[in-house]
Amino acid sequence: MDTDPPLQLRVFDLNCWAIRYLSKVRQERIGMIGDTLSQEGFDLALLQEVWSERDYCELKQKLTACYPYSHYFKSGVIGSGFCVFSRYPILDTFLYQYSLNGYPYMLQHGDWFCGKAVGLLIIKICGIIFHVYVTHLLAEYCRDKDAYLPHRVVQAWELAQFIQHTSKGADVVLLGGDLNMHPGDMGIRLLRGWTGLRDSFADADRFEGCEDGYTLVPANCFTVNKELQPFPLGIRIDYILYKGLSRFVVKCDSLVTTTGTAPGKSIPYSDHEAVIATLSVRRGEEAKGSSGSNVGPELVDVVNEAQTEVRARLHAAECQRDSNGRMASLALLLLLLQAAMGLSSLAGWDTPQPFPKFSSSLLSLLATVVLLLSMGLYIFHTIEVRMLQGTEEQMRLALQALQDKLSSM
Amino acid sequence: MDTDPPLQLRVFDLNCWAIRYLSKVRQERIGMIGDTLSQEGFDLALLQEVWSERDYCELKQKLTACYPYSHYFKSGVIGSGFCVFSRYPILDTFLYQYSLNGYPYMLQHGDWFCGKAVGLLIIKICGIIFHVYVTHLLAEYCRDKDAYLPHRVVQAWELAQFIQHTSKGADVVLLGGDLNMHPGDMGIRLLRGWTGLRDSFADADRFEGCEDGYTLVPANCFTVNKELQPFPLGIRIDYILYKGLSRFVVKCDSLVTTTGTAPGKSIPYSDHEAVIATLSVRRGEEAKGSSGSNVGPELVDVVNEAQTEVRARLHAAECQRDSNGRMASLALLLLLLQAAMGLSSLAGWDTPQPFPKFSSSLLSLLATVVLLLSMGLYIFHTIEVRMLQGTEEQMRLALQALQDKLSSM
Repeated sequence: MDTDPPLQLRVFDLNCWAIRYLSKVRQERIGMIGDTLSQEGFDLALLQEVWSERDYCELKQKLTACYPYSHYFKSGVIGSGFCVFSRYPILDTFLYQYSLNGYPYMLQHGDWFCGKAVGLLIIKICGIIFHVYVTHLLAEYCRDKDAYLPHRVVQAWELAQFIQHTSKGADVVLLGGDLNMHPGDMGIRLLRGWTGLRDSFADADRFEGCEDGYTLVPANCFTVNKELQPFPLGIRIDYILYKGLSRFVVKCDSLVTTTGTAPGKSIPYSDHEAVIATLSVRRGEEAKGSSGSNVGPELVDVVNEAQTEVRARLHAAECQRDSNGRMASLALLLLLLQAAMGLSSLAGWDTPQPFPKFSSSLLSLLATVVLLLSMGLYIFHTIEVRMLQGTEEQMRLALQALQDKLSSM
Repeated sequence: MDTDPPLQLRVFDLNCWAIRYLSKVRQERIGMIGDTLSQEGFDLALLQEVWSERDYCELKQKLTACYPYSHYFKSGVIGSGFCVFSRYPILDTFLYQYSLNGYPYMLQHGDWFCGKAVGLLIIKICGIIFHVYVTHLLAEYCRDKDAYLPHRVVQAWELAQFIQHTSKGADVVLLGGDLNMHPGDMGIRLLRGWTGLRDSFADADRFEGCEDGYTLVPANCFTVNKELQPFPLGIRIDYILYKGLSRFVVKCDSLVTTTGTAPGKSIPYSDHEAVIATLSVRRGEEAKGSSGSNVGPELVDVVNEAQTEVRARLHAAECQRDSNGRMASLALLLLLLQAAMGLSSLAGWDTPQPFPKFSSSLLSLLATVVLLLSMGLYIFHTIEVRMLQGTEEQMRLALQALQDKLSSM
C-alpha cells in the first residue's frame, strides 16, 4: 500500500445542544443537521448532546441511505447524548463512564445527573482499523472560580488512560468531542501529552472558519454573550484529535468550522460551531513520535500539575465529607433526644415540655431533612475521596514510570 | 529466548472474606494470609474482599520485603475490596466499574452498595508484559430462582469486553477472582469463548486439592452448609484463567487448592479456598487458537443465549420502571389533593374535612414516603433499562461480526 494513494476521510463533529423542551428551535436544527449530513456525505459524524433517543431515531431514519451504520450510546438516567453515523461498518463498541462528574447539590447545572462518559467505536475502513472515541467533558461555568476543574482534570486523565489502554490494536485513533477546555488548559496538555494525540486545528494544512478555530463565538445567535465575557472573540473547546499507530501516518489536510450560522441558513446548527476535518491516512514508516505518549519533561510537569490539583480537591473533599458526617451525627442526636422526650411524656413521666408541640414537630422534620441530606452528601463525598485517592495513586505510578523512562533515555 | 528456559510464575488467588465487624476471626485470618504469602513467596497474589484499607495496610507492611509492589483498587462507598501484591514492578493500573450490580432494595444482600469492578494491572516480568485482571462478580444467592443472573451475565460480558479491548498490548493475560459462576454456566462460557482465556484447573498438568477443584466446600468451617445444599460436595467459583498472546505460550504446570483448613493451621484462610497456579510462559510459535476468541458456532450460541437472558430482564425492568412511575404519579396526585384541601380550609371555605387531622397527616407522610421511594426506583430502573438496552445492542453487533467471520472462514 506504500505507493497507494492515501485514504481520505472527512469527519464531522458537533455538540448539537438538543435538550428537549429547553434548547431553542431544536427540531428545526435537528432537521438541518440531518439534511447537511445527508448532502455532504461525510465518512463519520460524531454528535454530542443528542439527549433524546427520538431525535437520534429521526436522524437515523433520514441518514440510513448515506450512513448505513450508526450507534447511540446509552448511559445514566438521561443518557450519554452521544451518537455516531458512519459510512463504514461499526465492528464493536464500548462505553466508559467517568468516575466523577460534578456535585449533586449543584442543581442549577445538573451535570451530576448526566452519564458523562467516553464511547469507543471500532470501525474498519479499507482494511485499516480505526478506534473512534467520542466524548463530552464537564462544563466550565466560571473560569475564575472553576469549582469543576478537579473533576474535569480527573475526566481528562481517565479519558487519556482509557484511550491508551484500549487503542493498542488500532491503526488510527480519532477523538472527537466537546472537551470544555481551552487549547492550553492543563487537561488538554495532559490528554495530548499522555496519548500523543495531535490537534487537527494546529496541524491542518488549510483552515477556514472562525478566528483561531473558535467553536463558541459571539456571532452565534444562541450563544449567551455574558458567558464569553473574558473572551469576547470566542473560545475553542470542540476538537478533533488523531494519531497514527503501527506504521500508519495521519495528516490533517484541512479543517473547517461553521461561522455562527449554518451555510445557506438563517440560524446555526447549535450553540456550538461544527468542526469538519479532512484527514489523509497512509501507510508509512514507523510513525515516530506520534504513536505513543510524548515522554519528556513537559509531560512530567503536566502530570505533576494535575496531581497537585487532584490533591487540593482531595483535601477539600475530605473536609466536606467530615463536616457532613458531623452534621448527620448532630441531626441524629437531636432526633434521638426528641424521641426520648416523646417517649417519656407518653410514659407519663412528669417532664415539662420545653417547646410547644407544633415547634417540636417542625424541629423533628427539620432534623430528619438535615439527617437525610447530610447522610447523602457524606456518601457522595466518601465516593469522591476514594476516586480522587485512586486517581492520585495512578498519577504517582505514572510519574514513576515516566521518570524511569526519562532516566533510561 | 526460544531456547531459554520458560519463565515460571506462581500465582495465588483468594476471596479473603474480610468484612469488618461481620466476618469471623478476621484479624487472625488476615495475619495468617500475610504469613503464608510471606513464607511462600509467590510471584503474584490476587486478593478479593479485603474491604478495609486498614487490613490492606497491615498486609502491605508485613509483605514489603517479599512483595515490594502492591496496589489497592479504590471504588464505590465501601471500596472494590481488591488488592494485589507483586514481586515485580506494577507499571500502570486501571479500573472499570460494572454498569449493573444488583438492586438497591435487596438490602439483605447489599451488593448494590459495593463498587463491583474489574481492576487491571500492567506488570513487566523479565521483559514480558503481563496484563493482570482481578475481579469479583455478583453473588448467586439462590440457584433455582436467581434474580441476579441477568446482571451477572451483563458483568461477565463487560468483563470479557474490557479484557478484549485492553489486552491488545499484552504478551500474557491473567485473570484471577471470584466469578460466582460454576464452570459450565453461561457467563463463564461467554467470558471464555469471547476472550479465549484458558482455565488453569482444566489445563493443569498436576492437580492437588479439593475434588473437582471446588473452592466452596463443606469441609470449610466458615461455609454455611445450607447454601451448598444442591451441591453437597462443593462448587468451583474461584478461578485463575490465562492466555498467551503475540507468540507467547502459557501452560499450567500445576494447580493447588487449600482443602478446608489452611496448611498447618486449625482454621481456614477464608470461607473460600485459595487457588494457587504454577504457570510457565515461553516464547513460541504464534499461539494459534489461544490468542483470540474461539470463533465458532458454540460462541454464537452462547452470545445468543446471553442476549435472550438480557432481553428477558429488559422486559421485566421496563415493567418495573413503568409500575414505579405510575405509583409515583398516584402518590403525587394524593399529595396535591391533600394540599388543595389544606389550602381551601386555610382560605376559610366551608369544606367538611373527610378525615380527622391526625389521619390526614399520616396519609401525607405515607404519600411522601411512597413518592420518594417510587421516584428513586423509577430512576434506578430507568438506568437499568438503558444499560440492558446498551448491552443487548452490543451483543447484536457482536453476533453480526461473529457471523461475518464464520461465513468468511
